[in-house]
Amino acid sequence: MPNAIPADSVGLVVPQTLRFSEPLALDCGRTLAEYELVYETYGALNAARSNAILVCHALSGDHHAAGYHAPEDKKPGWWDSCIGPGKPFDTRRFFVVSLNNLGGCKGSTGPVSVNPATGKPYGPDFPIITVRDWVKSQARLGAALGITQWAAVIGGSLGGMQALQWAIDFPDGLRHAIAIAAAPKLSAQNIAFNEVARQAIMSDPDFHAGHYYEHNVVPRRGLMLARMLGHITYLSDDAMRAKFGRELREGKLSFGFDVEFQVESYLRYQGQSFVERFDANTYLLMTKVLDYFDPAADFNHDLSAALKAATARFFVIAFTSDWRFSPARSREIVRALLDNDHEVSYAEITSSEGHDAFLMPNAHYQTLLHTYLERVAREVGV
Amino acid sequence: MPNAIPADSVGLVVPQTLRFSEPLALDCGRTLAEYELVYETYGALNAARSNAILVCHALSGDHHAAGYHAPEDKKPGWWDSCIGPGKPFDTRRFFVVSLNNLGGCKGSTGPVSVNPATGKPYGPDFPIITVRDWVKSQARLGAALGITQWAAVIGGSLGGMQALQWAIDFPDGLRHAIAIAAAPKLSAQNIAFNEVARQAIMSDPDFHAGHYYEHNVVPRRGLMLARMLGHITYLSDDAMRAKFGRELREGKLSFGFDVEFQVESYLRYQGQSFVERFDANTYLLMTKVLDYFDPAADFNHDLSAALKAATARFFVIAFTSDWRFSPARSREIVRALLDNDHEVSYAEITSSEGHDAFLMPNAHYQTLLHTYLERVAREVGV
Repeated sequence: MPNAIPADSVGLVVPQTLRFSEPLALDCGRTLAEYELVYETYGALNAARSNAILVCHALSGDHHAAGYHAPEDKKPGWWDSCIGPGKPFDTRRFFVVSLNNLGGCKGSTGPVSVNPATGKPYGPDFPIITVRDWVKSQARLGAALGITQWAAVIGGSLGGMQALQWAIDFPDGLRHAIAIAAAPKLSAQNIAFNEVARQAIMSDPDFHAGHYYEHNVVPRRGLMLARMLGHITYLSDDAMRAKFGRELREGKLSFGFDVEFQVESYLRYQGQSFVERFDANTYLLMTKVLDYFDPAADFNHDLSAALKAATARFFVIAFTSDWRFSPARSREIVRALLDNDHEVSYAEITSSEGHDAFLMPNAHYQTLLHTYLERVAREVGV
Repeated sequence: MPNAIPADSVGLVVPQTLRFSEPLALDCGRTLAEYELVYETYGALNAARSNAILVCHALSGDHHAAGYHAPEDKKPGWWDSCIGPGKPFDTRRFFVVSLNNLGGCKGSTGPVSVNPATGKPYGPDFPIITVRDWVKSQARLGAALGITQWAAVIGGSLGGMQALQWAIDFPDGLRHAIAIAAAPKLSAQNIAFNEVARQAIMSDPDFHAGHYYEHNVVPRRGLMLARMLGHITYLSDDAMRAKFGRELREGKLSFGFDVEFQVESYLRYQGQSFVERFDANTYLLMTKVLDYFDPAADFNHDLSAALKAATARFFVIAFTSDWRFSPARSREIVRALLDNDHEVSYAEITSSEGHDAFLMPNAHYQTLLHTYLERVAREVGV
């Protein structure tokens, strides 16, 4: 029985694929001779080609940001709360583009794709990508779609890092950069969590040094652990307390090692379902993209210098209970922008939902996005 | 070449073992027919038997709290900074007792011990212990040593929880309870971290449902992951930043998955060396002891009611950068004590070292402990 698709949904969407045959030189020194990017679009590009918004996904995201692939789908795309008619990224005004980044596992060229040089999946031989590489590939996607300047580049978490990199690498390529729940680089603690996740995957006997496809297995245990750990860092302690407290599934202690507290049940479920939909080599790659992001590194570790050439206007948003990329990390970005007298709006949203807040409906958050995007719409005449 | 043993060390110490043949009824409903406890003592018991201090260890600790087992030892016991002549727990005045708790893997009866019923190691069949069970076993150890009232029961983290439980279960059994970097119960986030650690161990193919001894293997990968994860929660983000920042071992990015950032190298080393010295079944057990600790649960979840019958005086200490058991958690204890008009001193020590601060030398911390213990010494006439 199909669900009724809500009136403010973009409705049914069909992913598209573009093949790029111009080689892409990567930061790691290697070159991708050719590659594909899968993407979705919502809304229509106007005649002036001025109303395009690029949505960048985070660690485990993909191109399916809004709407439904089939009427049976239980859930819409991952940012459906913000994309649609009347929503902050209003598809009656904007042409929203969302892609699966290079190295992903949802259709764009990545570790699960066949390496033309060997006829086998790339697996661990897929090059390590950087946010800079992604931005370059996104610029080519934009060009292919006839977009020379995005009205805005927007993302949360790792997606926000892409918006910042856009402003640095292609100053004329965007009018606005909206970086939500992001950081100018990972802290040692952030890297440490990623490292434990990587070790969990790489030490799984089913990992086979990344060549698990050929063994018809997947490193389930490792990927599950990585996801469970990730989830702890996405939620705040308060959110976990509100959601689970110390509630016991059976109402009393079992004095055993089966699932006992509700929070354990939640984490195991999150871990198990992730394994069904995500590739372990891509997960490893995404954590490295995060670890390597550090645009100031090329500017003598001076973030202000890194952002000097940017001409975009910025909107930086942080959430009070986010301890993965706390408001203090967003303020580092804002300070560097102010050092350059760049135009920046900054909002710290009160939320108990931790890092995940950027994906959640929240009236204050959505009103601010809405208002900001209305201004963008006026600027570009839509 | 033996090291010179410092003048303020308790010197060479020899662990002792006591066998208990009176059955111990446990919270889980099972009974240990007999068991052994291994312990160390530092200083001398006075004629009035009034100067004994019980030191309780945390998750991965043991009885070796101070001094050296051999002149070749590279490191002294885990709390050597606080135990010794002239140190806060001054062994010229106090008789300090430190045991390996039941379920441990350093000599006290636990999963690695032979189950007299089967002639094989208990392994996963060792009963799940609670802090209450420990306190009961510690009271028996005290009785065997001729101690009917401890001058103080002291511990950090899980050790502090034992001090609280002592005050609740044996009000006349101690004069002072000193709970450092503790909490009245674990939060959902705390439990979540423990659950990921447990899953890491239990999903390791070398775990063999806990019967790995019989297969002559140990779940190295899982235990290593558990320890790496633990270490992240013991350190503050600031401490990690100060210690490692984003420093690269080779000075530049490798674009590969080998150890790259200094923090990765540190964590892998911590994980690997832990596997050499700790048992996985004991680790699982210790995380359950933590998860289950909740003295208020028997009092309609009212911590004040739980602490009502206590007659000990309390000293509660928290560290500003401890996010595992933050000062807010210590304040919950203090508030419940004040509700009862119990005598309590409380100190929030400024430290950047996170939860680990309770083990580190810190002038403010040590001066406060020293001063408090001097008062205890005067009370008991030593």
